[in-house]
Amino acid sequence: MTVRNEELSHLKEVILRMAGLVEAAIRDSVQSLVGRDSELAKKVIAGDYAINTLDVQIDEECIRLLALKQPMGKDLRFITTAMKITTDLERIADNAVNIAERAIELNEEPQLKPYIDIPRMSRIAQGMIRDTIDAFVNEDKKLAKDVIMRDDTVDDLNHRIWEELMGIMIRDSSTISRAVKISYISKYLERIADHITNIAETVIYMVDGKIIRHMLPDQI
Amino acid sequence: MTVRNEELSHLKEVILRMAGLVEAAIRDSVQSLVGRDSELAKKVIAGDYAINTLDVQIDEECIRLLALKQPMGKDLRFITTAMKITTDLERIADNAVNIAERAIELNEEPQLKPYIDIPRMSRIAQGMIRDTIDAFVNEDKKLAKDVIMRDDTVDDLNHRIWEELMGIMIRDSSTISRAVKISYISKYLERIADHITNIAETVIYMVDGKIIRHMLPDQI
Repeated sequence: MTVRNEELSHLKEVILRMAGLVEAAIRDSVQSLVGRDSELAKKVIAGDYAINTLDVQIDEECIRLLALKQPMGKDLRFITTAMKITTDLERIADNAVNIAERAIELNEEPQLKPYIDIPRMSRIAQGMIRDTIDAFVNEDKKLAKDVIMRDDTVDDLNHRIWEELMGIMIRDSSTISRAVKISYISKYLERIADHITNIAETVIYMVDGKIIRHMLPDQI
Repeated sequence: MTVRNEELSHLKEVILRMAGLVEAAIRDSVQSLVGRDSELAKKVIAGDYAINTLDVQIDEECIRLLALKQPMGKDLRFITTAMKITTDLERIADNAVNIAERAIELNEEPQLKPYIDIPRMSRIAQGMIRDTIDAFVNEDKKLAKDVIMRDDTVDDLNHRIWEELMGIMIRDSSTISRAVKISYISKYLERIADHITNIAETVIYMVDGKIIRHMLPDQI
C-alpha cells in the first residue's frame, strides 16, 4: 500500500503548525524578558500544552502510517524524519518555557542591563526554525546546510554574553543572581539553535539518504 | 515479512553496548572532575566518536528493518523506540563531553570545595541509565516508571548545588568563574537525567502503546 499524497500533505501541515507555535514561543519568551512582560511569559508557559499535544498527535499519525501503509523509500524517510523533527521541536518549546520562567524571575528585580545580544540570538533562532522547516517541506538541502552554518553565530553570541556577564559579576557581586539567570537564558537559546541544527541534519539525511550527523562542517 | 528474532536481538545488543559506553562516559567525566584527572576527561571527549558511530549505525539498521521487513505491531514499536532511544543516548554523551570540558578548565585552578552532591547526581544518573535500558530490553514498565520517579531527586540536588554556589559567589567574588562552571556541570547532569526520563517514557509507550510523554506523574 502506498501512502496517499493527501496523508503526507496533512502531516506536513500539522508539522508546519507545530513549528509556527514553537517559533512564536521563542519570540514571546524573549519578548517577555525584553519588554519586562511577565503576563506574556505566562502565556508562553501555558501554550506549551498545545505544542505537546501536537507532538503526540504527529507521533501517533506517523506510527499509524508506518503500520498501515508500510511505506518504502522516500515516504519511509519522510515519516521517520517527521518523528525526529517533532521531538526536537517539542524540546525547543521546553527551552522557551525555561526562558519564560527565568524572565518572570528577572522581571521582579531591577533590570541589570539593556538586552541587545539576546534578542539577536532569538531572531537568528527564529529564522533558523522557519528555514529548516521550509527545507524539510521543500526538500531543500542547500537551505538546510545554510541553517547549520548559522549555528556558529549563535554559539559566538552565547560566548560573548557569558564573558560580559562574568565581568559584571566580578565588578559587583550584587548582580550575581541576575547575571547567572541571564547567562542561563543565553544558554537556552544556544541549545535551541543546537536542536534546530539537529533538525537540519535530519532533513539533509531525508533528502539524500546519507546520515551527516557527527560530520564536520567541511565534510557535509 | 517478519523481523527475525536474531535481528531484534542484534539490535538490542548494539543498544546495550551504546548504553554501556554512555554510562561510562558519565562516570568518567565526573571522575575526571572529582579526581582532578584531565587525562581521563580527554578520554571521555575522544570516546564520543565511538558513541556517535553506534548512533548512526543503529539508525541505519532500524531504517533498513523498517524498509525491508515492514514490521507490524510490537516489532514496529520496538524499532521506532530504538530510534528514539539512541537519539537521547547520543545527547547524554554530548552532555558528558561538556562535563569533561568544564572539568579540564576547573582542574587548572585550585579546587573550590569538595564535591559531594555532584558525584551523587552522577551515581543516580548511571543507575537510571542501566535500569531504563534494562526496562527496554525486558519490556519492564514498572522499572521504567521507577526511573522516571528518580528524576525529582536529581532536580532537587541540582537546585541545592545552585543555592550553595550562589552563597559562595556572593561571599567571595574571586570564586565566580569556578562556581558558575560547577553550576553548569550540575545542570548537565540534570539534563542527562531528563534525557533518561525521556527514554523511560518511550519504553513505557513501547510496552503498552500509550504515549505518556507530557503526562503528570500521577497520570502515568
